[in-house]
Amino acid sequence: MAKKDVSKAAIALHKKLGGKITITPTSKVTTRDDLSLVYTPGVAAVSSLIARPSSYTEQAKLARVHTMKGRMIAVISDGSAVLGLGNIGALGALPVMEGKCALFKTFANVDAFPLVLDTQDPDKIIEAVMAVAPGFGGINLEDIAAPKCFYIEEELKKRLSIPVMHDDQHGTAIVVLAGLINAAKVVKKSLNSADCFVVVSGVGAAGVAIMRLLKQAAPKVNIIAVDSEGIVHEGRKDLNDTKKKLIKDKIIFAREGGDLAKALVDANIFVGVSKPGVLTPAMIKTMAPKPIIFAMANPTPEIMPELAHKAGASVVATGRSDYPNQVNNSLAFPGIFRGALDNKVSKITDAMKIKAAQNLALLVKNPTAARIIPGPFDKGVAQAVAKAIR
Amino acid sequence: MAKKDVSKAAIALHKKLGGKITITPTSKVTTRDDLSLVYTPGVAAVSSLIARPSSYTEQAKLARVHTMKGRMIAVISDGSAVLGLGNIGALGALPVMEGKCALFKTFANVDAFPLVLDTQDPDKIIEAVMAVAPGFGGINLEDIAAPKCFYIEEELKKRLSIPVMHDDQHGTAIVVLAGLINAAKVVKKSLNSADCFVVVSGVGAAGVAIMRLLKQAAPKVNIIAVDSEGIVHEGRKDLNDTKKKLIKDKIIFAREGGDLAKALVDANIFVGVSKPGVLTPAMIKTMAPKPIIFAMANPTPEIMPELAHKAGASVVATGRSDYPNQVNNSLAFPGIFRGALDNKVSKITDAMKIKAAQNLALLVKNPTAARIIPGPFDKGVAQAVAKAIR
Repeated sequence: MAKKDVSKAAIALHKKLGGKITITPTSKVTTRDDLSLVYTPGVAAVSSLIARPSSYTEQAKLARVHTMKGRMIAVISDGSAVLGLGNIGALGALPVMEGKCALFKTFANVDAFPLVLDTQDPDKIIEAVMAVAPGFGGINLEDIAAPKCFYIEEELKKRLSIPVMHDDQHGTAIVVLAGLINAAKVVKKSLNSADCFVVVSGVGAAGVAIMRLLKQAAPKVNIIAVDSEGIVHEGRKDLNDTKKKLIKDKIIFAREGGDLAKALVDANIFVGVSKPGVLTPAMIKTMAPKPIIFAMANPTPEIMPELAHKAGASVVATGRSDYPNQVNNSLAFPGIFRGALDNKVSKITDAMKIKAAQNLALLVKNPTAARIIPGPFDKGVAQAVAKAIR
Repeated sequence: MAKKDVSKAAIALHKKLGGKITITPTSKVTTRDDLSLVYTPGVAAVSSLIARPSSYTEQAKLARVHTMKGRMIAVISDGSAVLGLGNIGALGALPVMEGKCALFKTFANVDAFPLVLDTQDPDKIIEAVMAVAPGFGGINLEDIAAPKCFYIEEELKKRLSIPVMHDDQHGTAIVVLAGLINAAKVVKKSLNSADCFVVVSGVGAAGVAIMRLLKQAAPKVNIIAVDSEGIVHEGRKDLNDTKKKLIKDKIIFAREGGDLAKALVDANIFVGVSKPGVLTPAMIKTMAPKPIIFAMANPTPEIMPELAHKAGASVVATGRSDYPNQVNNSLAFPGIFRGALDNKVSKITDAMKIKAAQNLALLVKNPTAARIIPGPFDKGVAQAVAKAIR
C-alpha cells in the first residue's frame, strides 16, 4: 500500500476498533458459586494468603502465582519521543503503546497493558512507575526521550525487583546486533577484530544502547560515534554526561573531530539511528571494501537501499517493511519479556541480550545480503529470544 | 459451600488461573499488512491525528474514538481497607481488584484494569492516579481507607475531566438507597418524611456516602449517625472533619450523646456498615413498629437475619449471598461506568446516583420482605443503572 493509503486505512481501523486491546476474564462468572470464588467472599482467602508474609518479596512470590503479576507487563510512555513524530505527549502515544501490547500477545502470548503518563518530568515518571509496579511482572519503557531515558531506566532498575527495559534502547540494540552478526558473516568479516571499524550516526537512546551492546559482544571492535555536531571526541566542550561516559568507558574512540564523511573513510560498517538522508553515495564509496549499511532512520532512512547498493554497499538494512532486512524491534521485545516472566528474571543483563541477538541471528540458517535477520512472522522468533533470558 | 471450602476452592482456582483477567488484541496481526496498520508505519497517522489539536480536551475527544480511552476504566487501590481484612497493602488487594475487573466485563461489558499502588500517602495516590489517567475513560477507586478516601476522591474529581468514583462509598450508597426505597414500600412507610428516623452505625467511607445520598434523595428524613464512640453530635470533642461536616451540612442531627441502643429507640430503620454483633435483639425491640434492618458488616453482619426477624424486624438485608436481600455493590458499579462511558459523562452526580438507585429499585416489580433488591445475575441490572448515568 502507498503511504497515504496506509495512513487512511490505519485511521479507519482504529476508529472501527476503538482501541486495540480488550480485557477478558479468565473465568466465567455466571452463578453465585462462581461469584463467591472470583469475588467475595472467596477472594478474601487469596488476599489473606498473599498478605500474610511480612516481607514484600515473599508477598510478591505468592502474588506471581495467584494473580496477574506473574504474567502482566506494563508498557509505559510519556510520549516524549514517539516513533519519528517526536514529543507528541501521552494521548498521541497511546495508539503506539496499544499496538505494542497487541504484538506482545500475538507474538509471545505475553499480557501487556499500556500506561501513558501525564508527566514528562523524569522524577515524576519514576514515581509513577514505582507506584503502579506491584501489579506487574515487568516494565517495558517506551518512546521516552534521551538523555532522560537513561536516568529513568537506571533508577527504576535499581529500585525495582522486576525487570525494567527501555525497548527503544535494548530491543533495538539486540536486533541490530543480530543483524550485524549475520551481515559480518555475509561479507566474511569478524566483528570482534581490531580492524573492524563501525561508525554510529546518532547518539540517542538507540545509538547509545547499540554501541554499548556491540562493544560488550565484540570487545575488539572500534566504534566512532557521530552526532549532529560531528564526531564525538574528548576535545568537544558540548558533550552531555551520556556521551562523556561513552568515552570514559572506552565504548567509543576518536582522537579528533570531523564530520560523518571523515568518520566513514575506510570504515566497515555504518549504523544509522539519526536522520533521513545524512548518508551519501559519495561517503559509501570512501568506506573499506564490502561496506555494511544499517540505515534505520524512520520512516525515511539515512540513505535509500537502491542508492546504497549502487554506491557499493554489500549489505543494507533499514527499518522499513518494504525492503529486505527490516530491523524491527518486534523481533525482540515479546520474547525478552516472555523469557523474563517464564524464568522469573529480575534483571535483563547484557549477557542475556547478547545471547538473544545470537539466537536471533542463528534463526537465519544461511545468511545472504538479502536476508540477515528473520521476519517478524517467522516461526520460533519469540521462543529463540525467550530462551536467552534466563 | 462452607466458608472453609469456599476459601480452599478460591485459592485453588486463583492458582490455576494465575490472574483473573487477560489482555486480548481486538484485531489479528498475522500479515505484514496487519502489522503496518496496527503498528508501524500506519499507527503514526493515528498518533499524529490525536496529537494535532493543541488542547488536551480536543486530543482526549479524538483518543476516545481511536484508542481504548473510550472504554477503559482503571480500578485503583492502595490496599488500605480491603474487604473486611483491613490494611493489607497493594499485593493483597490485587485479587480483589482483578475480581472487580472480571465483574465489570461480565456484567456490563466494561473493560477495566486493576492498578494496585505502592504508596498509601494520599497526595502520592493522587499524583499516581493523575499520572496514569490519560489512557482511561474513568477511575474506580477501591478499598481506600476513610477519611483519606474522601480527600483523594474530591481532589481527583476536581482535577480530572473523566468520572472518578470511590465505589466503597457511592456504589454501596446506591444499592443501599435502592434497598431502602423498596423496604419502605414493603412496610408502607415514606422515606422522605419528618417522622422517618434512620440510624446509621458506622461513619466510614460507606456510612458517610449512604447518609449523604439518602438525605439528598429524601430531604425530610432524620438521620442519626453512631460511631465507635456513640452518637455523633456537636458536643463531642473527638470528631474528625468528615463528621463535623455531616453536622454542618445538616445531613445528620442529634442534640445529645448516647450509645447505639439510645439512638435506636423509636427509630424506623437501622443501617449498619460497622462491626459484627453490635445490634442486639433487645435494641430492635425498642424500635418503632415494622423496623427495617440493613446489617451489612462483612462477612458477619451486625445481627444475624434469623435473630433480627425473631426480634420483630420486618425487612432484613445483609451483605451475604446466603440470605435474601444481599446488598452487593456489583449491582451498581458495572452499570455506572457503562453509562458514564456510553454517555461521555465527566462527573457522576448525586442526581444520577439517585436515579440509578430508583431504577434498581424498580427492577423488583412487587417488593416483598424477602425480595427488595435484584440479584446480581438478574437480567437488565447493569442496563437499568447505566440508563441513569447520562
